[in-house]
Amino acid sequence: MTRTRKDAAASARGDQPFDLAILNVQLVNVFTAEIYPADIGIVGDRFAYVERAGANPLQAKRVMDGSGMWAAPGFVDGHVHNESSMCTPARYAEIILPLGTTTVCTDPHEIGNVLGMRGVRYMLDASQGLPLRYYVTVPSCVPAVPNIETAGATFTHREVAEMLQWERVIAIAEAMDFVGLANQVGNITPIVEVGQQANVPIEGHAPFVTGRFLQAYLAAAGPRASDHESLSADNMLEKVRMGMMVYARVSSFLDVTPELVRAVNSTPDTRMFGFCTDDIHPNQLLQFGHLNFGMRRLIEAGLDPIKVYQMATLNVAQHYGLYGLGGVAPGWLADLVLLDDLSGVIVRHVITGGALRVEDGRLFEPVPEPVPPLLENTMRLPAGMSMESFTPKIEGTGMVRVNAINLANLIDTRLEVIELAARDGSISFPLPEGVALAAVVGRHGQGRPPSLALVTNFPIQSGAIASTVSHDSHNLVIIGKSPADLFTAAQALQQGGGGLAAVKDGKVIGSVPLPIAGLLSPLSVPEIAQQVDSFDAVMPQLGLPPMFPITLLALALPVIPTIRLTDIGMVDIFTQQFVPMLAA
Amino acid sequence: MTRTRKDAAASARGDQPFDLAILNVQLVNVFTAEIYPADIGIVGDRFAYVERAGANPLQAKRVMDGSGMWAAPGFVDGHVHNESSMCTPARYAEIILPLGTTTVCTDPHEIGNVLGMRGVRYMLDASQGLPLRYYVTVPSCVPAVPNIETAGATFTHREVAEMLQWERVIAIAEAMDFVGLANQVGNITPIVEVGQQANVPIEGHAPFVTGRFLQAYLAAAGPRASDHESLSADNMLEKVRMGMMVYARVSSFLDVTPELVRAVNSTPDTRMFGFCTDDIHPNQLLQFGHLNFGMRRLIEAGLDPIKVYQMATLNVAQHYGLYGLGGVAPGWLADLVLLDDLSGVIVRHVITGGALRVEDGRLFEPVPEPVPPLLENTMRLPAGMSMESFTPKIEGTGMVRVNAINLANLIDTRLEVIELAARDGSISFPLPEGVALAAVVGRHGQGRPPSLALVTNFPIQSGAIASTVSHDSHNLVIIGKSPADLFTAAQALQQGGGGLAAVKDGKVIGSVPLPIAGLLSPLSVPEIAQQVDSFDAVMPQLGLPPMFPITLLALALPVIPTIRLTDIGMVDIFTQQFVPMLAA
Repeated sequence: MTRTRKDAAASARGDQPFDLAILNVQLVNVFTAEIYPADIGIVGDRFAYVERAGANPLQAKRVMDGSGMWAAPGFVDGHVHNESSMCTPARYAEIILPLGTTTVCTDPHEIGNVLGMRGVRYMLDASQGLPLRYYVTVPSCVPAVPNIETAGATFTHREVAEMLQWERVIAIAEAMDFVGLANQVGNITPIVEVGQQANVPIEGHAPFVTGRFLQAYLAAAGPRASDHESLSADNMLEKVRMGMMVYARVSSFLDVTPELVRAVNSTPDTRMFGFCTDDIHPNQLLQFGHLNFGMRRLIEAGLDPIKVYQMATLNVAQHYGLYGLGGVAPGWLADLVLLDDLSGVIVRHVITGGALRVEDGRLFEPVPEPVPPLLENTMRLPAGMSMESFTPKIEGTGMVRVNAINLANLIDTRLEVIELAARDGSISFPLPEGVALAAVVGRHGQGRPPSLALVTNFPIQSGAIASTVSHDSHNLVIIGKSPADLFTAAQALQQGGGGLAAVKDGKVIGSVPLPIAGLLSPLSVPEIAQQVDSFDAVMPQLGLPPMFPITLLALALPVIPTIRLTDIGMVDIFTQQFVPMLAA
Repeated sequence: MTRTRKDAAASARGDQPFDLAILNVQLVNVFTAEIYPADIGIVGDRFAYVERAGANPLQAKRVMDGSGMWAAPGFVDGHVHNESSMCTPARYAEIILPLGTTTVCTDPHEIGNVLGMRGVRYMLDASQGLPLRYYVTVPSCVPAVPNIETAGATFTHREVAEMLQWERVIAIAEAMDFVGLANQVGNITPIVEVGQQANVPIEGHAPFVTGRFLQAYLAAAGPRASDHESLSADNMLEKVRMGMMVYARVSSFLDVTPELVRAVNSTPDTRMFGFCTDDIHPNQLLQFGHLNFGMRRLIEAGLDPIKVYQMATLNVAQHYGLYGLGGVAPGWLADLVLLDDLSGVIVRHVITGGALRVEDGRLFEPVPEPVPPLLENTMRLPAGMSMESFTPKIEGTGMVRVNAINLANLIDTRLEVIELAARDGSISFPLPEGVALAAVVGRHGQGRPPSLALVTNFPIQSGAIASTVSHDSHNLVIIGKSPADLFTAAQALQQGGGGLAAVKDGKVIGSVPLPIAGLLSPLSVPEIAQQVDSFDAVMPQLGLPPMFPITLLALALPVIPTIRLTDIGMVDIFTQQFVPMLAA
């Protein structure tokens, strides 16, 4: 450090050459919200000189001509689940660095649910020394909702306190149990308290939270709280006015661009707005991009570019207290994005830690895996599973009234009573058109038989689809037309250590192997994306549209209304009561 | 903590009354730079509820009607030497709380120079548990300039590292040796490095520093550097553009209001501008005020009030990472100023830590001293001092050419060669009109005889004035017309433990006793101010104007050009060479 400082000061004074100088570039100054031509000098991993172009003659070992380009601080992603891109941190870096993202504040919530602290540790080990700055926030809701589902681990405030001691761990990750927090009950309350004692941000998750309840949430979680779940401009404004960092989110799931634009344009000071990606699937990462994509959208929709760059850099860094990141100035860490187009956020070169990582849009050198991918098989399904295990037992013969999950609206599933034929103590197969059989199989050694439910408004015609990516406990979710199809899919994924599988006529016709915790692939993002595309392409053979079946990811997610199926059973989210298969 | 959070959330939800509610007040929202009517609920030491007025019915144990008033976060002073107000922290709190300042980031540089770490420790102990939030930054330049003066202590990076571990110590205080830092030499370099390792701000002191040299200073001190010494708008802008926090300063010494207004109004984003008072004398504190005075001046001079309030609150808190301070929002610390006039910064009520401290401009209850004032006599003058010690020995008889310090411009003193009569190996007395004798006596046990010099352009006619407040080493400075007068003044201050003294005809005719380290009085600020006023009032008896003789504070200050007198001798600041009394 001293060596770098000494050299940096000497180069700034003009007593020795810079390692790298970028001349006559349009500097996006996020401190003052100005853009002007500047010269930039870098020594070691830091900026040593940032001045108006031509103010002084600069000597450097390497000189880049910046004319025609803009220079901005490397982009900082305030909240992201790396796992949603299904790749390791190294493979993730490979893709997002050329898009301008140089720092990620990740929430390893998915792998934490499968592997507990060992999963969090793996993501830290697997991101050690990357050219991407990789920070971790401690998952606060493992499991997401205790008692109605079973994850692979439980984090109490004790585990959280321990993980907060680890290097590169900088916050409590999204406090999804906003009801518990505002009511000051449950696991989340001492977990947030541990974070406050450590003086770290409490990353929030407060959809629809407003009025008195928002006040209570912040009374509990403030003053370093954030949110990335706001859907309306009014709600965003309500939050930033209360000192909450509100992230603009560009995810695979939601787009609230017009509301964001209205919110940011409604207030004179926008320092409380940040940026995040949350969840991006591998093929969307390739197709659309990362923060750069969301930034472009906001600019196209009418936001001042300089504000958007501030949101994606300094604002987030200040929220986290990541001093030295998010700005271009002497003494700051030399993470720099050089762009061909400011409003289009077209990235050309990327520097992190003073080193050129991306030149003309291409990665300079491959990013090695810091540790071997964690390839142990985490599929601890119940022993002695058979087709029988997937056969819904039911009292009665002839037509019976069955409680089913209507999937017409995936973020607001409903209980629907349907009539099905029964015979010999089970539902009769084949099922009628539009009705399918769903199973959630505990894969964390619960030893419990699969929990089963009928679903409606899911157009599968034959076979089954299955996934070990199933938020948030990532048990094995399968939907299909018969117990045999479900069993075949379960067997396929058990052998491969997890992933996605499509089954027809007793054969696996499509798959995305995710052998790392059943969540991640050791392959590159283009390779994974190709597997996902191929998987999507076989969906029509099952009567499904040729797109990723998000139903698999959400069927078991017990934080979204109204009826879900967990490894324990069919559950009413509001009452937290289990629902029997046979209707009253 | 948990108790407060639980209660705060419950009150926010409406399940129990707030401790205090302030209804229908104009909220100065520093997050968004908006002003609108709001209701505020407080529980324990934190805000629990801050919403648009009338949004919900609020129950509270005590309700205040806020109509006709504005509510702003308590003011945060980014850099201040408590010692300049000559009072203890408790007495300081008593005066500045009613003026709206609720947090001070102090630099105990003066007492550190006298008592070393024990002095810093005393200021922390004497501010423990005050209703004023009292933070300490570690003095980085003790002594200010090694080798040419002698302080009571020396702080290397080892002492600094130790003090950084103490509670409420939050930064490295002003790195005055900007030349050493930019050149990466001297004591200051490892001291700043220790601060960077501890991830604390490096408070700066960079007057006139610009261009390449500023770049080098920041390459060495960044990314958490600040400055409060900029004199021109251009220099302020140059600094904020480089990620430096620039404090607007309202001190007893300098007023750069027009330049500040021009700088702040020149840039769209003003988050890098803060506020500080630096040095305020006790009688000016009473006469003009504290941060409130400077804020009013900037608003009168044309700054948007909301920006000025942001500068004096959130901006400084964010710079220091003092999370929970500087904003009014649920979960944040309840430090609140209620004002009768926003632009005039007329403070009516003040709340800190949720408790009403000031009501209708008056302190609610006296502020007790947390520890007894440190009254030990720190005057360790050389033994066996006599009139002879103050007699300037000189070779020659008749007229001799003498090197004198011309005091016409106190911040740019000049060497002047004058002719004086000599007799019997010393200068002859009485001295001619306009010429006086100055002495700096080491008072930290140096054991060295007084260093003497002749001064010109100082209109004292008879007697002597003396001070143990003499930046930065706070040796004893005396200026008078004869060795006898100087000796009398020295004796008077030695007995009293230091302070200010005026002597005429062998008698003490005025004094300000400062028995705590020769810097502070245990009295209240009004009492001290009255003593200072009385002291100033006797100045005409010595032929001086009826105002505080700042010459006493600055004569020995070896960081200001050109010629100074330290305890070691007369010194040329630029060459750091000592100058003999007899001219060549």
